[in-house]
Amino acid sequence: MIKRLGAEFLGTFWLVLGGCGSAVLAANFGGEGNPLGIGLLGVSLAFGLTVLTGAYAFGHISGAHFNPAVSFGLWAGGRFPMRDLVPYIVAQVLGGLFAGFILWQIASGSPAFAPDPSAAGNFASNGFGPLSPGGYTVAAAFLCEVVLTAMFLVVIMGATHSRAPAGFAPIAIGLALTLIHLISIPVTNTSVNPARSTGVAVFAGSGALSQLWLFWLAPILGGLLGGFLYRALGPERPDVVGDR
Amino acid sequence: MIKRLGAEFLGTFWLVLGGCGSAVLAANFGGEGNPLGIGLLGVSLAFGLTVLTGAYAFGHISGAHFNPAVSFGLWAGGRFPMRDLVPYIVAQVLGGLFAGFILWQIASGSPAFAPDPSAAGNFASNGFGPLSPGGYTVAAAFLCEVVLTAMFLVVIMGATHSRAPAGFAPIAIGLALTLIHLISIPVTNTSVNPARSTGVAVFAGSGALSQLWLFWLAPILGGLLGGFLYRALGPERPDVVGDR
Amino acid sequence: MIKRLGAEFLGTFWLVLGGCGSAVLAANFGGEGNPLGIGLLGVSLAFGLTVLTGAYAFGHISGAHFNPAVSFGLWAGGRFPMRDLVPYIVAQVLGGLFAGFILWQIASGSPAFAPDPSAAGNFASNGFGPLSPGGYTVAAAFLCEVVLTAMFLVVIMGATHSRAPAGFAPIAIGLALTLIHLISIPVTNTSVNPARSTGVAVFAGSGALSQLWLFWLAPILGGLLGGFLYRALGPERPDVVGDR
Amino acid sequence: MIKRLGAEFLGTFWLVLGGCGSAVLAANFGGEGNPLGIGLLGVSLAFGLTVLTGAYAFGHISGAHFNPAVSFGLWAGGRFPMRDLVPYIVAQVLGGLFAGFILWQIASGSPAFAPDPSAAGNFASNGFGPLSPGGYTVAAAFLCEVVLTAMFLVVIMGATHSRAPAGFAPIAIGLALTLIHLISIPVTNTSVNPARSTGVAVFAGSGALSQLWLFWLAPILGGLLGGFLYRALGPERPDVVGDR
Repeated sequence: MIKRLGAEFLGTFWLVLGGCGSAVLAANFGGEGNPLGIGLLGVSLAFGLTVLTGAYAFGHISGAHFNPAVSFGLWAGGRFPMRDLVPYIVAQVLGGLFAGFILWQIASGSPAFAPDPSAAGNFASNGFGPLSPGGYTVAAAFLCEVVLTAMFLVVIMGATHSRAPAGFAPIAIGLALTLIHLISIPVTNTSVNPARSTGVAVFAGSGALSQLWLFWLAPILGGLLGGFLYRALGPERPDVVGDR
Repeated sequence: MIKRLGAEFLGTFWLVLGGCGSAVLAANFGGEGNPLGIGLLGVSLAFGLTVLTGAYAFGHISGAHFNPAVSFGLWAGGRFPMRDLVPYIVAQVLGGLFAGFILWQIASGSPAFAPDPSAAGNFASNGFGPLSPGGYTVAAAFLCEVVLTAMFLVVIMGATHSRAPAGFAPIAIGLALTLIHLISIPVTNTSVNPARSTGVAVFAGSGALSQLWLFWLAPILGGLLGGFLYRALGPERPDVVGDR
Repeated sequence: MIKRLGAEFLGTFWLVLGGCGSAVLAANFGGEGNPLGIGLLGVSLAFGLTVLTGAYAFGHISGAHFNPAVSFGLWAGGRFPMRDLVPYIVAQVLGGLFAGFILWQIASGSPAFAPDPSAAGNFASNGFGPLSPGGYTVAAAFLCEVVLTAMFLVVIMGATHSRAPAGFAPIAIGLALTLIHLISIPVTNTSVNPARSTGVAVFAGSGALSQLWLFWLAPILGGLLGGFLYRALGPERPDVVGDR
Repeated sequence: MIKRLGAEFLGTFWLVLGGCGSAVLAANFGGEGNPLGIGLLGVSLAFGLTVLTGAYAFGHISGAHFNPAVSFGLWAGGRFPMRDLVPYIVAQVLGGLFAGFILWQIASGSPAFAPDPSAAGNFASNGFGPLSPGGYTVAAAFLCEVVLTAMFLVVIMGATHSRAPAGFAPIAIGLALTLIHLISIPVTNTSVNPARSTGVAVFAGSGALSQLWLFWLAPILGGLLGGFLYRALGPERPDVVGDR
């Protein structure tokens, strides 16, 4: 169990360091309007690749959730035992926080680092209303996070099903996260992952922290919905297993 | 059969939500000329990833068509029974329409949302002539949709052939859709899929609806052409099967 | 043999239609300086995806060369019989020419289509000196095409070796072509493929035609070099076979 | 052994030619601010694809390290014998230097080639402080290189573990390198590979050479850290083997 939690810690660390790191360090490289920066497309790719690579590296150890909403969703889908939920989530949140800490150390080494707790997307944080990158309402943000996390879980459940081609799940799941970011960074800066939101909100400051509730509630709700949905749809129901 | 239709509904929902969603929400993020937006490259990637991920998630349930032109083409190729054509297509169109509805709910949560039924590409709709993103004629649009859908079917038929490496078809097919978008978004905003066109045309308004006929006719014609073409070319002809 | 040549024809058609099509139709979408266009990155991706998808679709029929330099290189590497060289190359060139023809039909449907036979990269043609996108000398262009085609063949020979993981070769080979374009579009607009160069040069006009010799000579020289190089390096020498 | 060293030479040649070549030739194509250039996203993709393609081509010959920090890390992880360290590293550095030489020949064929030994990122070199693309301090640069190389090794160790799905490791490892570049090009121009740094520093001039020590020290330290970390975390410890 210690090794599984270590894998969840490191994998979530990688997710937040890579995804949020690319956003903080490289998205706007060269200044506003400079096409050298990797933009939303680069950040979307980075988030997906953290999961693609992390799932190949850690999937055989912990199942590679890296995300409380995924753990909840796999429980709803009958693939993950409830007794492991709390330790997994604790490891994920700690990994996300450690990534936020390391990322802050690196980012603050630049003379241009100027965090602003009242700005949308500050330190790659998630938000809605005035803290949404595109100014989206709380209702749109909530709907978006629920629907996308639900579909994320449907893809995870389907791609890891015993009838799906073996070995390809990390590609499908990682690139599903890329896709989700391609759609929704303008809406909420894209969470679908409470550990990712928490890991940077603590460093981003008051604004992000005051809205953190939505990025726990909506993704977990979506994850549960997706898990139940695939369970109803899927061709058979495998026994509860400890990894996906 | 209910589960197969559910998979087609959800998969087409994912295709339209992801592909059209990235176009509506993220392509121009930050305003015209801002390189932060994902642009045509990001939208092309998003469309392809909906199919790549959806095919790993649902391929073992329904065969993962998500597209009436694909269903017609696989029938022409001897891989899909005619009796399933109508239910599949109904499920696909309903999935596309539901995605258009959800996307509208999310998009209208932004203060910048300003749909214009007379503009090319409004709400990610397909068009030709004055409604083509690059002002292409109806003849160029028709030719483009026929040829690209035909080649899409050739790739689908080939990559799912029993002699092709097992498990890789969703990668080949999804990335073929990305490639098709990289070529043809300027021409028609890229359909090759009547369900995708219909799903957003209903919300995009009068202009898109009046041109919808081409995005049923040309892709289905192309799909039939591709299916027959590969059947003539392929090394052997497998029996009719319910999934690809 | 007819089916194999049909596959080479269609695959090279797909390569030129997709790669050159994305360059002609979408690279500069919205006008010079507009980040909506797919740029050199999108064109690089498109070229690679034509081969990735084409190799999954046609690999089990013809070996999926789609390129005279690849056919020469595989002969040098002991993987392709000399007697098939000429028919393969004829089919490839005809496929490339047909793609150039179809692409011209589509492109000329736009009011903005303004081909200029004296401009670098006109109709996605290859060139050096004044016809190099970045103004590179003929020596730099020659060196670049030789080295990159040689490495392309090394990757093809290695990834299709019996000791390499089965089924992954189309991914490795397609993405190698993407990589080659990421490096060298500024130098020669990237050929590494005489059929691709010929397919558009005929339509691009006098300038491209007068420089076409280099894009036969250098890629074939590079292909031979790469084939011999891997043969010297590889762990064993498989018998001559008709497909890779 | 000669063949293994030849593979390491050619693979590292490919890594430096492709990754640094895309940066030197194509990143800023069309001039500062022109979105046609491939930008940091294109360079990140290019670096990753050199390893993805090289690992499919050479993995079955040499294990496809292409990087002294990887060789050190795999030794720390118990996967590579110490006696092979020095020959592997010599082959890698020579391959990197040869790539720097060829790249210089090609690049100097453009009238716009204007190397400046005192500029950050000159000839794709790595640097910190005034030679960091984003002006990052030496401490931030050191931390960044150590952490990212450590995670690179963790992914390599995990994805090549006998329990991980067979054949996918080159995808995971190549795309991990893409991810690392998406994060850290602004910090150090991204090394995580002493052979890559050395291969271009010799040509980039005095500035890059004077800072080269950090790009040997930090990546090797990170590699060792990652190798030990995974060894502690991994589910079992395989015997020392000559290839990954």
